[in-house]
Amino acid sequence: MKTTINKLSEHVGKTVKIGAWLSNKRSSGKIAFLQLRDGSGFVQGVVVKSEVGDEIFAKAKGLTQESSLYVTGTVKEDERSALGVELEVTDVEVLHQAVDYPITPKEHGTEFLMDHRHLWIRSKRQHAILKIRNEIIHAVNEFFYNNDFAKVDPPILTGSSAEGTTSLFHTKYFEEDAYLSQSGQLYMEAAAMALGKVYSFGPTFRAEKSKTRRHLIEFWMIEPEMAFVEHEESLEIQEQFISHIVQSVIKRCENELKTLGRDISKLENVKAPFPRVSYDDAIKMLKEKGFDDIDWGDDFGAPHETAIAESFDKPVFITNYPKDIKAFYMKPDPNREDVVLCADLIAPEGYGEIIGGSQRIDDLALMEQRYEEHGLTDDAYKWYLELRKYGSVPHSGFGLGLERTVAWISGAEHVRETIPFPRLLNRLYP
Amino acid sequence: MKTTINKLSEHVGKTVKIGAWLSNKRSSGKIAFLQLRDGSGFVQGVVVKSEVGDEIFAKAKGLTQESSLYVTGTVKEDERSALGVELEVTDVEVLHQAVDYPITPKEHGTEFLMDHRHLWIRSKRQHAILKIRNEIIHAVNEFFYNNDFAKVDPPILTGSSAEGTTSLFHTKYFEEDAYLSQSGQLYMEAAAMALGKVYSFGPTFRAEKSKTRRHLIEFWMIEPEMAFVEHEESLEIQEQFISHIVQSVIKRCENELKTLGRDISKLENVKAPFPRVSYDDAIKMLKEKGFDDIDWGDDFGAPHETAIAESFDKPVFITNYPKDIKAFYMKPDPNREDVVLCADLIAPEGYGEIIGGSQRIDDLALMEQRYEEHGLTDDAYKWYLELRKYGSVPHSGFGLGLERTVAWISGAEHVRETIPFPRLLNRLYP
Ligand SMILES: [Mg+2]
Ligand SMILES: [Mg+2]
Repeated sequence: MKTTINKLSEHVGKTVKIGAWLSNKRSSGKIAFLQLRDGSGFVQGVVVKSEVGDEIFAKAKGLTQESSLYVTGTVKEDERSALGVELEVTDVEVLHQAVDYPITPKEHGTEFLMDHRHLWIRSKRQHAILKIRNEIIHAVNEFFYNNDFAKVDPPILTGSSAEGTTSLFHTKYFEEDAYLSQSGQLYMEAAAMALGKVYSFGPTFRAEKSKTRRHLIEFWMIEPEMAFVEHEESLEIQEQFISHIVQSVIKRCENELKTLGRDISKLENVKAPFPRVSYDDAIKMLKEKGFDDIDWGDDFGAPHETAIAESFDKPVFITNYPKDIKAFYMKPDPNREDVVLCADLIAPEGYGEIIGGSQRIDDLALMEQRYEEHGLTDDAYKWYLELRKYGSVPHSGFGLGLERTVAWISGAEHVRETIPFPRLLNRLYP
Repeated sequence: MKTTINKLSEHVGKTVKIGAWLSNKRSSGKIAFLQLRDGSGFVQGVVVKSEVGDEIFAKAKGLTQESSLYVTGTVKEDERSALGVELEVTDVEVLHQAVDYPITPKEHGTEFLMDHRHLWIRSKRQHAILKIRNEIIHAVNEFFYNNDFAKVDPPILTGSSAEGTTSLFHTKYFEEDAYLSQSGQLYMEAAAMALGKVYSFGPTFRAEKSKTRRHLIEFWMIEPEMAFVEHEESLEIQEQFISHIVQSVIKRCENELKTLGRDISKLENVKAPFPRVSYDDAIKMLKEKGFDDIDWGDDFGAPHETAIAESFDKPVFITNYPKDIKAFYMKPDPNREDVVLCADLIAPEGYGEIIGGSQRIDDLALMEQRYEEHGLTDDAYKWYLELRKYGSVPHSGFGLGLERTVAWISGAEHVRETIPFPRLLNRLYP
């Protein structure tokens, strides 16, 4: 019976056949231990010479790293293994013998591994991170579907950008100029007026020459937008959302988190509600911690975010930033003109900002004033203004960066490991 | 209690409050019927002057199309309505009175509607199509998650294209040249060797000056790739996949299909297995139907696909096309050198090709030969060759176009209605 490694425990005592690759091997003259992987999981195959005979044993012993094979064997319970089983091999059919696989169990440099990313993703650690990424993606879609959000796909190619074109990729769209979207938010606002609660989940592009462990040139963003939802309710949805993601991964990716050596106790506590700190208080906290490079009105850098997050064992909302350091479409606090109804969500353990969100301006006259202040005279943004002209409603939204979330939950040090084929400065291959 | 229209039937007899827009209205001196929408659904609100008093009645009667409001009322069963309920209005709070909403119940031209796409999506028909799109997206993710596929996101920005750059959008990636991906397939093959069964679901770009009702410049594709899966097994997965999508929409989008006037009897029959016709037989069928513009070796055009599909009441696979009209990576039929192990899936009712798929070449020498024949000397594709060098395995994959699938299932005439903000020739706005 043909099956896959993740299903082996359903077949204890039975004979099965799996397609697999050899990830590693130990052997003596009488017994060979094959570390097998098939993408669904990892399992050990045990080949005993006296059981299988000389020919099959020789085939097993001759297998090189990353050779592909069909393995037939009997599934045995084995408490030491992650899946609780091992395979007592009865037959081996070599599909393709790999020669000189470049990624050996020894240490390799980052650039070498990045040049071989198409192979590197086969290794146990990269596999675990990509499985966690998959589970996070699933948890995102599950949360929104179960809460009646419609997935809406905003366009990637747009005719202009409300926030300047310096960090945008440009292309010719036949006779016109077009840019790769950095955010679908404005479109999502239009969609929220049509479908109520919506979210997007797609690639985003930032042509920035920055080289940090938190930045990718091409990354995936989740941008929900909700009609008739005010700032405080949006924060509650955000904390439910993040809790759902983290608890889903803990429940469904036990083996992968173990492979990565992730300290799960740091994740278990990530349950709503999350603490909220006003920007004003955050500035005070930083001063008390001895930071003298920041004053009211300045935006936070990574060290500031990390310092604030250190005071909490959950993600923390920093709320109500000064209007001048936030986007033009954020709604002013009705009690205080100088701050806006917004929040950034800072992950624990130094992983930085994972969500930015706000209530949006719904007043036409105020939005027209913002257009003037920001020089948004381009006809390309006329439609966005019209959302305030025809049945404007209170509405809020936020954006979650997928790769930073994967990095945080999997404990990866650099976002380049959190996406299958990272795009970085000077990195367009493979 | 604040709720949404789709949940009203859970509150029969209770007083609730909803945020909504007025989509239409009828009124006399004593009673007003408000057609309300909130994105989650449509419901009728009934305002009786003698019940609510003069002031509230005047507010309700004065509402213009697309004005936004909070409505309080009692939920009553009503068999005539799609949701089984209507709202006996007790209070109206006008949020924003819309003036001269441009899309009136009268007929508008296509270009006018496309220029107002940000508002057009509020209309009942567009809303229904986008809800069906959302359900299809959900069914896709659900099918793959339940069948142990990992979602893998291939890069959009790539350094080169194996199939020529004429229909690719170009951008400068810092000092390098980059192109917007037309398919993530090559990357998905690498991912399948790491994760076993994978699928992508993302935007795809085709810089083609074609203007047909089946083509978009920017559209969404689903590309599964499966290690250790041969051609026939792939076809079986494809028919299960399409059946799941269609049956999910029938079950979960009853109201939307009714709104669109979709003939559901044509969809109910879409259950696996699907008929298979070889390319050879398809040519014969076309000759018998009187087509004299096609010979063995030619690719099919839309009229040919429609003519073949007419003979079946389910989607039909056309298999084993001539090698010369298909992609370089398709595996030759082991029994016949001149055709490849591939299939296109043609939707019924003239909706054309929705899936293209094949088993891939797994032999290194043959792939090297194809590289030579196609002049793939660019270093940018070295990594793809290496997948055949290290543990090559039989593998297959396919691509489903989301918008054509939405068009078919919802019965839309033109793909421009199947995506929130279509990108077409000369259409980059809104
Ligand atoms: Mg920030
Ligand atoms: Mg075709």
